[in-house]
Amino acid sequence: MKVNLSSLDTCESSFTPLVVLELAQDVKEETKEWLKNRIVSKKEDGGAQLLFRPLLNKYEKETLENQNLYLVGASKITLLLGAEAIGLVKECNDNTMRAFTYGMRHNFKDFDDDNNDFLTMAECQFIIKHELENLRAREEKMIPGYPQAKLYPGKSLLRRLLTSGIVIQVFPLHDNEALKKLEDSWYTRFSLKYQPLDRIRGYFGETIALYFGFLEYFTVALIPMAVIGLPYYLFVWEDYDKYVIFASFNLIWSTVILEVWKRGCASMTYRWGTLVMKRQFEEPRPGFHGVLGINPVTGREEPLYPSYKRQLRIYLVSLPFVCLCLYFSLYVMMIYFDMEAWALSLHESSGSEWTSILLYVPSIIYAIVIEIMNRLYRYAAEFLTSWENHRLESAYQNHLILKVLVFNFLNCFASLFYIAFVLRDMKLLRQSLATLLITSQILNQIMESLLPYWLQKKHHVQVKRKVQALKADIDATLYEQVVLEKEMGTYLGTFDDYLELFLQFGYVSLFSCVYPLAAAFAVLNNFTEVNSDALKMCRVLKRPFSEPSANIGVWQLAFETMSVISVVTNCALIGMSPQVNALFPESKLDLILIVVAVEHALLALKFILAFAIPDKPRHIQMKLARLEFESLEALKRQPSENIIEEKAPFTKEAKRENQMKLMAQNLKEDSREGNKEEEA
Amino acid sequence: MKVNLSSLDTCESSFTPLVVLELAQDVKEETKEWLKNRIVSKKEDGGAQLLFRPLLNKYEKETLENQNLYLVGASKITLLLGAEAIGLVKECNDNTMRAFTYGMRHNFKDFDDDNNDFLTMAECQFIIKHELENLRAREEKMIPGYPQAKLYPGKSLLRRLLTSGIVIQVFPLHDNEALKKLEDSWYTRFSLKYQPLDRIRGYFGETIALYFGFLEYFTVALIPMAVIGLPYYLFVWEDYDKYVIFASFNLIWSTVILEVWKRGCASMTYRWGTLVMKRQFEEPRPGFHGVLGINPVTGREEPLYPSYKRQLRIYLVSLPFVCLCLYFSLYVMMIYFDMEAWALSLHESSGSEWTSILLYVPSIIYAIVIEIMNRLYRYAAEFLTSWENHRLESAYQNHLILKVLVFNFLNCFASLFYIAFVLRDMKLLRQSLATLLITSQILNQIMESLLPYWLQKKHHVQVKRKVQALKADIDATLYEQVVLEKEMGTYLGTFDDYLELFLQFGYVSLFSCVYPLAAAFAVLNNFTEVNSDALKMCRVLKRPFSEPSANIGVWQLAFETMSVISVVTNCALIGMSPQVNALFPESKLDLILIVVAVEHALLALKFILAFAIPDKPRHIQMKLARLEFESLEALKRQPSENIIEEKAPFTKEAKRENQMKLMAQNLKEDSREGNKEEEA
Repeated sequence: MKVNLSSLDTCESSFTPLVVLELAQDVKEETKEWLKNRIVSKKEDGGAQLLFRPLLNKYEKETLENQNLYLVGASKITLLLGAEAIGLVKECNDNTMRAFTYGMRHNFKDFDDDNNDFLTMAECQFIIKHELENLRAREEKMIPGYPQAKLYPGKSLLRRLLTSGIVIQVFPLHDNEALKKLEDSWYTRFSLKYQPLDRIRGYFGETIALYFGFLEYFTVALIPMAVIGLPYYLFVWEDYDKYVIFASFNLIWSTVILEVWKRGCASMTYRWGTLVMKRQFEEPRPGFHGVLGINPVTGREEPLYPSYKRQLRIYLVSLPFVCLCLYFSLYVMMIYFDMEAWALSLHESSGSEWTSILLYVPSIIYAIVIEIMNRLYRYAAEFLTSWENHRLESAYQNHLILKVLVFNFLNCFASLFYIAFVLRDMKLLRQSLATLLITSQILNQIMESLLPYWLQKKHHVQVKRKVQALKADIDATLYEQVVLEKEMGTYLGTFDDYLELFLQFGYVSLFSCVYPLAAAFAVLNNFTEVNSDALKMCRVLKRPFSEPSANIGVWQLAFETMSVISVVTNCALIGMSPQVNALFPESKLDLILIVVAVEHALLALKFILAFAIPDKPRHIQMKLARLEFESLEALKRQPSENIIEEKAPFTKEAKRENQMKLMAQNLKEDSREGNKEEEA
Repeated sequence: MKVNLSSLDTCESSFTPLVVLELAQDVKEETKEWLKNRIVSKKEDGGAQLLFRPLLNKYEKETLENQNLYLVGASKITLLLGAEAIGLVKECNDNTMRAFTYGMRHNFKDFDDDNNDFLTMAECQFIIKHELENLRAREEKMIPGYPQAKLYPGKSLLRRLLTSGIVIQVFPLHDNEALKKLEDSWYTRFSLKYQPLDRIRGYFGETIALYFGFLEYFTVALIPMAVIGLPYYLFVWEDYDKYVIFASFNLIWSTVILEVWKRGCASMTYRWGTLVMKRQFEEPRPGFHGVLGINPVTGREEPLYPSYKRQLRIYLVSLPFVCLCLYFSLYVMMIYFDMEAWALSLHESSGSEWTSILLYVPSIIYAIVIEIMNRLYRYAAEFLTSWENHRLESAYQNHLILKVLVFNFLNCFASLFYIAFVLRDMKLLRQSLATLLITSQILNQIMESLLPYWLQKKHHVQVKRKVQALKADIDATLYEQVVLEKEMGTYLGTFDDYLELFLQFGYVSLFSCVYPLAAAFAVLNNFTEVNSDALKMCRVLKRPFSEPSANIGVWQLAFETMSVISVVTNCALIGMSPQVNALFPESKLDLILIVVAVEHALLALKFILAFAIPDKPRHIQMKLARLEFESLEALKRQPSENIIEEKAPFTKEAKRENQMKLMAQNLKEDSREGNKEEEA
């Protein structure tokens, strides 16, 4: 019954390929041999214990090009042990969610020794990625054959291979059959139904499934705002009361939907197991470097980096840099408005045709400058966040997102704020808002999905023709698939997708009382956005590695902050509107005081609402409490081993306990290193 | 080596008395006998397994009165098992904090079978209280001898005995020797040093130690504000810039000190073990009632009450009632100001001596009405919170505190707000503030500690004389102590002490820019407050039962809310000051906009600060993460028993696991019910 990690296992010549490794064309044989050895050799020898073979056999290599593509797979037992190592949480037979362990595998739902469906393909690929990334240097001082590629104990090999250009890329393969099924239930047949989030999660992992879940939730949640906003546009309502009602509804509504999302998200991620999966036991991210030491939490050997140094870097370098960039961006905006005014005055004084063209120049220059600044800033932010040397991938992502977010927010909305509160031109504001919202939405969909899809399709046809032209009598399906996928674009994470939603939320809520139609446009856009994003994920881009996550992370905070800011802006806009000002013809003072009071009351209400709505539904809270209770009870019964060793067995009871403990330890070693015994 | 719970054990005639139980004078013998049986009988028979004897033996009873005082104690093993049951956390030999278990007792620091100092006296008394409170009805339909005192399965006996007046009170005894030592290191010798918080915690428990810790911390933290505020008073600075600087400093400072307190508090309660002690596994509070069922988290039998019913009661009854009371309180305040104005106009129109006395009448009436309203409201709040039927004592306390707090805040500060923002009379505001602050502080100290201490001392002398007059040839020390302590006042929890501090914080921060001297008065008051509160705890009141707590609970939120409100009030006050108004002679509008902008910036800064300062120091975070990691690892190795039972032992491995599991189970039963085996 016991599956063995025999040496035969890792040399299997045919296995299901899960991940592709592309080496550079000129990699030395010596290096290839070393890499192969490290990948297939056993855990106790510092290997990853994976399966590994070239895409083409010797005969095929002579016929076809692309000799540097390798396929990586894993035996079932390696995958299961890997699942235990990364702390994957699965459902047990008694419907509780527990961290998977190989020893207890039969207690888990749907587990069967003959069945390969227990782990989803995305999970298998994630495990392989994890194993590859955690291949770390031991005594090697450099990568064999590449003296310039230095290594030190604990350095991630894959990371060094990628930075020295020896490995070009590592990516997971699509599963065409499963992909087809997924597409059919997702977007190819047009119908108004919820997305198959569990399937998306099974294929692409939790992070991406959560993005689509949020996109869907957010769209549905915007519908009431869109419906209420429509008549304002249709009947050109300009009443003071109506605007106030609309804005108040929006502000309360946005708080409620964000709180309710947290609850829905917790339910979903509990079912997926990621809510229970512990963050702090995450392995360090591949880019993390430091002195090799013992992690005080887990007792495992890994690089350590003092957190005060990280704090110093964040507060003394990154923070001032970000502030400087923000200031610079505002400065550029002011120059733009100056240029605009100058062009206008020039046109008015000497109204020739030439000067009427000049009127568009400042806008064009400003748009270009903003785009350049955004890109430069993005690089700088990535460099800085990487230099801050965060231990966890999640911490790295959060810091990067925060940096980029603040800058993007300013770039996007600063000019609108200027128009609204300095120029106080509501017509211009409404116009700019509509233009920005609609053009950005249309451009995004085209640039992000449709254009790449069309290019991708053309490329596909070319490759197919080429492969057929070879007339090789080998089964070219896998070859064709790998060659096609390796040329696809890489999905750079959910960042840009969330950013798009975030800016959309800004357009909808920040100035909602000026342009009630924004919500309707957002809803329309998001209905097609789901489809174009799904198309992008399935057909345009390389399959991304799955990434477990328990919530949308820093984005929750970002959306909440936006909804707080929009309380302030909406109250100010209402206070500035001529209809309201007409109500207080004599005393502007009273007007402002009333507006400020209303704003404070709304903010207080928001905070009370956020406080009163629990973040997790009650049934999830109960299940989490039960898990915690059980683990504490288990700890009571079974303290850490060092305690046992310290204790002299001077009572009958203690002796029996010790005996039990030893048995438990033996048992554990048995199951984890079973093959060792059998070999001996 | 094994200590036994033999039947002899519970009938010991002499033991260290820890807790006193006072019955009513006319309790029937039948009831006494039944109660005694329930208290001393074994756990498996539904008893509390405690030691129990009358204060006086038969001979003494004939000589002395007070035949209804009983002493409760416990054998060492009952206390240790009780410590395990309540989940007490103690330090292990390897310096980690772990939940104590009887089986693993030798792994804990300072544990020795011959040593009685492992549990502090406060912990022992808490355990006894817990055991007494969790004596629950089984088949009994009523308390024997009292048909009107109905019982149902799961009802706490002590609760019913107390509500039917059969048991008058239960209180823990002082330990005169330890108390003397504590006093010497605490307050009797005047010197400027920190309080012995660890000793206070050992004697009075965590909740009270945390109060004194917070009082001390808060006083020290106010010193900078007092020092900076002094010159404003001495040199009569009325500059605009200086006020702004002082107010800004205060606002940022109050955020920082509240955040830093959280960190200090976490360090302290980690050392005391209460930070790790899990709240959600608390047993239900004695007043909690419901249908007996299985708790889904712990799997233990206890009363259950659906949470939606509680929510309905909170939102549909309690919340509207509180709002109504608040409205009523404001209404009374308006009547007071009307009366004041009427009295003033009367005095001005017919300025006789009679009318000048009349000027004081509204204030006196208002003060009396406020006091009456406070008391009535307090009763109503207690009734409502009790009716909401919270499962945990902590939830009950939090809801009660929140209710009372809001009302007290309004009663205390509404008139000041009215003076500041409606009458806009800064002189009157400063005057009222000073009068309120100083008189309330002086009155508090006298009424709370010094007067009761004096009364207490007089009573003490009387009792001593009486006991000596009896000339009983028995050792009267214990008798004297019990009789004295039973007449002492009861400590009603830290609520009033915190409330005093909270209102003080309000006086200091809400109007800090009008009356900078407030902080200095607060510091002076708190230096003596520490001593008078200590005196009150040690000499004036009955010793309270210790109560474990991990933080100051809802008070943290209350203080933080107060500091947010004070940002708003201070900005408004500065904006209204004549000096600032003089800076904007033409445009009030600009002034208000600037003030609002500054206020928003300060609020944003506060939230960013609160977000950026971690709630727990890094070393505590690490230790908690380690504990969590270990307990999850333990859970991985040892899943719940029902899984094991479900699983057929079809592999060699599983068989061995099952064997081990059975051994572990036997072992556990062995140690917990050792006496059962020996009796058989």
